Amino acid sequence: MIKTPYLLFLGDAPDGLAAKVAQGIRDWRPENAVGQFRMDGCKADLGLTDMALAEGLAAGARTLVIGVANRGGVISPAWKAVLLDALKAGYDIASGLHNLLSDEADLVAAAAEHGRALHDVRVPSVDYPIANGVKRSGKRCLAVGTDCSVGKMYTALAMDKDMQARGMNATFRPTGQTGILITGDGVPLDAVVADFMAGAVEWLTPDNDADHWDLIEGQGSLFHVSFSGVTMALIHGGQPDALILCHEPTRTHMRGLPGYDLPSLETLRDTALPLAKVANPACQVVGISVNTQHMSEDEAVAYLAEVEARMGLPAVDPFRHGAGRLVDALAAV
Amino acid sequence: MIKTPYLLFLGDAPDGLAAKVAQGIRDWRPENAVGQFRMDGCKADLGLTDMALAEGLAAGARTLVIGVANRGGVISPAWKAVLLDALKAGYDIASGLHNLLSDEADLVAAAAEHGRALHDVRVPSVDYPIANGVKRSGKRCLAVGTDCSVGKMYTALAMDKDMQARGMNATFRPTGQTGILITGDGVPLDAVVADFMAGAVEWLTPDNDADHWDLIEGQGSLFHVSFSGVTMALIHGGQPDALILCHEPTRTHMRGLPGYDLPSLETLRDTALPLAKVANPACQVVGISVNTQHMSEDEAVAYLAEVEARMGLPAVDPFRHGAGRLVDALAAV
Repeated sequence: MIKTPYLLFLGDAPDGLAAKVAQGIRDWRPENAVGQFRMDGCKADLGLTDMALAEGLAAGARTLVIGVANRGGVISPAWKAVLLDALKAGYDIASGLHNLLSDEADLVAAAAEHGRALHDVRVPSVDYPIANGVKRSGKRCLAVGTDCSVGKMYTALAMDKDMQARGMNATFRPTGQTGILITGDGVPLDAVVADFMAGAVEWLTPDNDADHWDLIEGQGSLFHVSFSGVTMALIHGGQPDALILCHEPTRTHMRGLPGYDLPSLETLRDTALPLAKVANPACQVVGISVNTQHMSEDEAVAYLAEVEARMGLPAVDPFRHGAGRLVDALAAV
Repeated sequence: MIKTPYLLFLGDAPDGLAAKVAQGIRDWRPENAVGQFRMDGCKADLGLTDMALAEGLAAGARTLVIGVANRGGVISPAWKAVLLDALKAGYDIASGLHNLLSDEADLVAAAAEHGRALHDVRVPSVDYPIANGVKRSGKRCLAVGTDCSVGKMYTALAMDKDMQARGMNATFRPTGQTGILITGDGVPLDAVVADFMAGAVEWLTPDNDADHWDLIEGQGSLFHVSFSGVTMALIHGGQPDALILCHEPTRTHMRGLPGYDLPSLETLRDTALPLAKVANPACQVVGISVNTQHMSEDEAVAYLAEVEARMGLPAVDPFRHGAGRLVDALAAV
């Protein structure tokens, strides 16, 4: 568990896109972001207060989160100097970079010397159990996609935000590095050893109040041959009561797999639901989340209306129109 | 790749069952087993020539394979003495034990000193790629089960044996520790990190001759919530042209999952085949392998006839009646 709140390290980001992780934290957990730390030449700006390390600490920050991608997978000397200062000043550091903090000998030594933690959120930090399939109390919702990167995390976070605003009993459960950095906790599922994937999802979504919803971040797709095993483990380990189907209608082939067509929403429904019922016979498909970012407003509205009529389920783009109708559907389960 | 042939170490096995791995090697790759090494009190006997370490070397053995489970997950001092002698004498050592050879400092030191290899086949030794889904040449057969441990490995090995006898172009591709020790090569799929599972299967079953069949060892079951993700990765990474359905008809619930019913063979077919067609649209279900060990001969014959009529596919128990009809079905693909 990463200590919150954070000071968001934007480094020398070449543009706003490079700071996507920091933007996610600001958007979805603004209470976790006390300010931003920018180096000379930083081209990203989250609109948060610029703070030096000492100012961040004074504002309550406990962890410096690397909210930006690094260039060439190398932690530069300029970054390193800031990170060493941060450990000395009293920060833990958290990172989702491919190259690990724990592989940098000077950071490891400084963390040990000052009693600070280094969190590499790509690396599992728990010995997960093998899944036992025992039915758990409370309710769970899982987003499943026709493809990877169609908005599953966004959908779950948007539903979580809406449910919190309504005073519903809900928790977003991250299964990827960005989600883990946003909330400070979760399972980096794609880095878990095969035998323990479903067990890690059970661990992440334990027994809970009868009216509590876990909103589990989806990964991959049953139809994406590179990552379908991870999706399968989420469906069986998550024991979802409710599935949300996610889709991006303008994609011409599966992400990274030229020659592989996307399945229809009907095929996704008819594949995912029977598999989900193995672990939870009461599971149902409750709604559809469409990523319409490459459509005009008119196109999006028309497409959503068509999908809604065809599938007989609420179909929304939570980014354009909010997740309220998906939450209504969950509340009716 | 483990150097063959082997001297099979049976240690102080309390009974024949404890030497299951060694029996598998003797049964399926007798040419890999030059003899057996038994310690005082060993209650297992494979019927192979008893050999001291020097005799094994003289007979050509290159690797001492630990073909027996150890008690309490500890490598005893008596075992250790033999293993150290073996490294000194010129053997590599291979093991599928939970506790790793590479965690034993004295074995690691002796292997380094004498230039020998320690193979822990539960640990992946390759940096597998992420699956790319590109269609590969040659043909592939995968056994999928209604449950775990219903005879998938046995089925693939029996088909391999029959195909070799017919002079067909085929390779058994192990995905678990026993299979890897039998052939000396393979992927310990349940120990691979989630993101690389399907890629490991692609790596294991590369481009091949147009008439070549990979017989891929199955793992888990799409209906076993603990391990279904591993099965899914096999189905998509393996790009099977042919599926064999495997079943054990007397089981009352999924292995290790009280309260979970086994699916019917029809449900297995209707679930696995559409998923397999995502990676290989030409995939077909060609036969059914039934483990009838808990049935009498009459019961078995009647059950197989009923399944064959109901499913319209050859249904055999390869242990009782041979795998010939399954191979006939493959040859017709």
